[in-house]
Amino acid sequence: MDPKEFCIRGKQMVDYIIDYTESLDKRRKVFPEVKPGYLRPLLPNYAPEEAESFEDVIADLERVIMPGMTHWSSPHFHAYFPSTFSYPSLLAEMMITATSCIGFSWASCPAATELEIVMLDWLGKAFQLPAEFLSDSGGDGGGIIQRTASDATLMTLLSARHKTLTKLEREQPNQVNGTHLNKLVAYMSDQAHSSAERAAIIGAVRVRKLPSDEKFSMRGVELEKVIAQDKANGLVPFYLCATLGTTSSCAFDNILELGPICQREGIWMHIDAAYAGSAFICPEFRPLLNGVEFADSFDFNAHKWMRHWQIPLGRKFNSLKLWFVLRLFGMKKMQELIRLDVAMAREFEEFVHKDERFEITNEVKLGLVCFRLKGSNELNRHLFEAVNKEGKIHITSTELRSKYTLRFAICMGNTRESVRFAWEYISSKATALLSSPSEYGN
Amino acid sequence: MDPKEFCIRGKQMVDYIIDYTESLDKRRKVFPEVKPGYLRPLLPNYAPEEAESFEDVIADLERVIMPGMTHWSSPHFHAYFPSTFSYPSLLAEMMITATSCIGFSWASCPAATELEIVMLDWLGKAFQLPAEFLSDSGGDGGGIIQRTASDATLMTLLSARHKTLTKLEREQPNQVNGTHLNKLVAYMSDQAHSSAERAAIIGAVRVRKLPSDEKFSMRGVELEKVIAQDKANGLVPFYLCATLGTTSSCAFDNILELGPICQREGIWMHIDAAYAGSAFICPEFRPLLNGVEFADSFDFNAHKWMRHWQIPLGRKFNSLKLWFVLRLFGMKKMQELIRLDVAMAREFEEFVHKDERFEITNEVKLGLVCFRLKGSNELNRHLFEAVNKEGKIHITSTELRSKYTLRFAICMGNTRESVRFAWEYISSKATALLSSPSEYGN
Repeated sequence: MDPKEFCIRGKQMVDYIIDYTESLDKRRKVFPEVKPGYLRPLLPNYAPEEAESFEDVIADLERVIMPGMTHWSSPHFHAYFPSTFSYPSLLAEMMITATSCIGFSWASCPAATELEIVMLDWLGKAFQLPAEFLSDSGGDGGGIIQRTASDATLMTLLSARHKTLTKLEREQPNQVNGTHLNKLVAYMSDQAHSSAERAAIIGAVRVRKLPSDEKFSMRGVELEKVIAQDKANGLVPFYLCATLGTTSSCAFDNILELGPICQREGIWMHIDAAYAGSAFICPEFRPLLNGVEFADSFDFNAHKWMRHWQIPLGRKFNSLKLWFVLRLFGMKKMQELIRLDVAMAREFEEFVHKDERFEITNEVKLGLVCFRLKGSNELNRHLFEAVNKEGKIHITSTELRSKYTLRFAICMGNTRESVRFAWEYISSKATALLSSPSEYGN
Repeated sequence: MDPKEFCIRGKQMVDYIIDYTESLDKRRKVFPEVKPGYLRPLLPNYAPEEAESFEDVIADLERVIMPGMTHWSSPHFHAYFPSTFSYPSLLAEMMITATSCIGFSWASCPAATELEIVMLDWLGKAFQLPAEFLSDSGGDGGGIIQRTASDATLMTLLSARHKTLTKLEREQPNQVNGTHLNKLVAYMSDQAHSSAERAAIIGAVRVRKLPSDEKFSMRGVELEKVIAQDKANGLVPFYLCATLGTTSSCAFDNILELGPICQREGIWMHIDAAYAGSAFICPEFRPLLNGVEFADSFDFNAHKWMRHWQIPLGRKFNSLKLWFVLRLFGMKKMQELIRLDVAMAREFEEFVHKDERFEITNEVKLGLVCFRLKGSNELNRHLFEAVNKEGKIHITSTELRSKYTLRFAICMGNTRESVRFAWEYISSKATALLSSPSEYGN
């Protein structure tokens, strides 16, 4: 494809993307009807020998890809957590791809290396992180773009492991190989994301999941308990992963209690705020981050919520996206959008609250509402299936203290209308389910 | 930014990218003149409160970013290994960004999950991998897009660790925690990429670097030696990372010798062909992969060479890029482009070979030529600095058996003319250096 053709095709792609994005409401089901294995029969078994035409490829987007798409930007997508996209981030992505630079060292792309440092400082300041987290504070602080929160958590666990092993080897040299490693124990709550436990498994250290309280929050008293036990057994607590905004119910660990204990015990406290982090740019939500001053590290996913940041993965020139998005929106607008999302979650919470058949199962602090029909897990499982079945809206479910629960997340394309539509849809499915002469009545 | 504005801005960005890409030869130095820390003073200390205009942002690309760019697509970039970009991959990237889907499970995006499986089969067939590596063979085979070769290597080491520990725990249960882990030992050559050693460190297993032969190739006889030693010491060899196309000199480990030994000993053999892998689509280079039938896993970087695949990182809808690129180029054209790159490397090798002042220090099999002035390391270090100083061309250096060596890689934007220009430039710098009345004469 020469520049002349790309000039035409690139502009056609811009039109195609606008058409796709702006018609998500009308044209498409949010969740596809296909069955596993649908795609292979639609494609040849081998890559083509000769080049194909752009027209054929674009036509195949509709024939092959669109029928199997879960539309994350649809107004009717309320599943998982949001993954956002915006026109400014797309403009930045185009430029990132065109430069094809890989910033693994300063010399490999000075602009990429340095913009990332400054952009992470911009974010740190927007979150009012303590000065020692910033690179322009003159210390060792600073942030980088990890590919996922899982990567960030793994990196912090490995750093903590290295720090502790170095200390133990200095204090008790001449031990048999592996003796120190076998003593290390990492903590997290029973609500932590699976990536935290996975990090411990990869790092070959013991892991202890602490019971959370009735609000699904990890508390200091439980931490004190396990530390005492583990130390009595000769183990070395070295790392705690605290979550702000858990995946299941958007709960917040009590870092104001946990932090001082970790400091006293020399335990590395990492804060995983993958979803909730973006909200901390709004002063009214910033108190949720109080206690960060005790933390050794902190991560959040810009793409998860800070509408409309989409940070893909890796050491590409991703800071360019932050720069484009922060500038083309401005902080005020970003705060407005965060507040609108939280307001919509509150509205949905209110709908549920007013309907006596339902109960709310989490404390709604940001954009996630957990709710269920008062009744059996079986009943709720049937409601979940009925709601998702036609692909008109898309939600996910979770289990909280053995209670099967529906999760309604405010996602990228959501509007007041689509939230109301979703509630009415869910409500009507509940009515149908409860009135049917089946075994699932209350 | 609303759709109407994006319609304008997106098309302006297409024009900007064409202008950037097509003017790399004339307009810009391949390596920037800036000093570390250049960028921060050019930016405000905080993200803007109010939105800025697109014009301002684009203008800042020239003011802030371009002065600090290492232009990886420049015809005069011969450093590291190639990172490629093509117009078809950019079209795919636009679409990937616009869908903003995250394919972590089938339901989260069926099209993304399934296209990836089929595309990796297309590639596996293009490489003539044994059927058990393919997902359509009916077995457990299949490939996925890892974010980097480092990730792929780490994943395979962790898989091998898990497999071996499970076996040991079954055979010798009731051991003290960590006993089995402490016995595991991973092998790689002294030429392996740093990511292989890092994988072992992350996985908390011992690592042994085997001496390579005079062609920088890891051989069976050395492997037999360390296995015997380690087993005598009660250790358990469990993993070998063989490299096809090392970073320093594009050398090839002898997998035909190593493979049967690994099979006999139950050692997981991983093949890291990060750079060289793409060449295996050409029948004349496929013999370099003979022995893959003994391997448990195999990785290569599509973006490294299979011009013009650029796979960034992660579980985004990256298979769409493979699909666009494979179809809009076709296999024949891709083979042609690989062959042209190898031919250009041969031409450069010939230039060096004809100049008696120089020596070639690797066996040139694909697109990397390692060479040096006959003389001291100090002399060659000065040549390297003289060549890169003005930013007219950009190369990297390495050390091979304590010999400081220059590396000339055929990269994305290279042409016969730019390769010839590079040689004449290097040659003239050598002449100036050798004739100067300094301490670096031969």
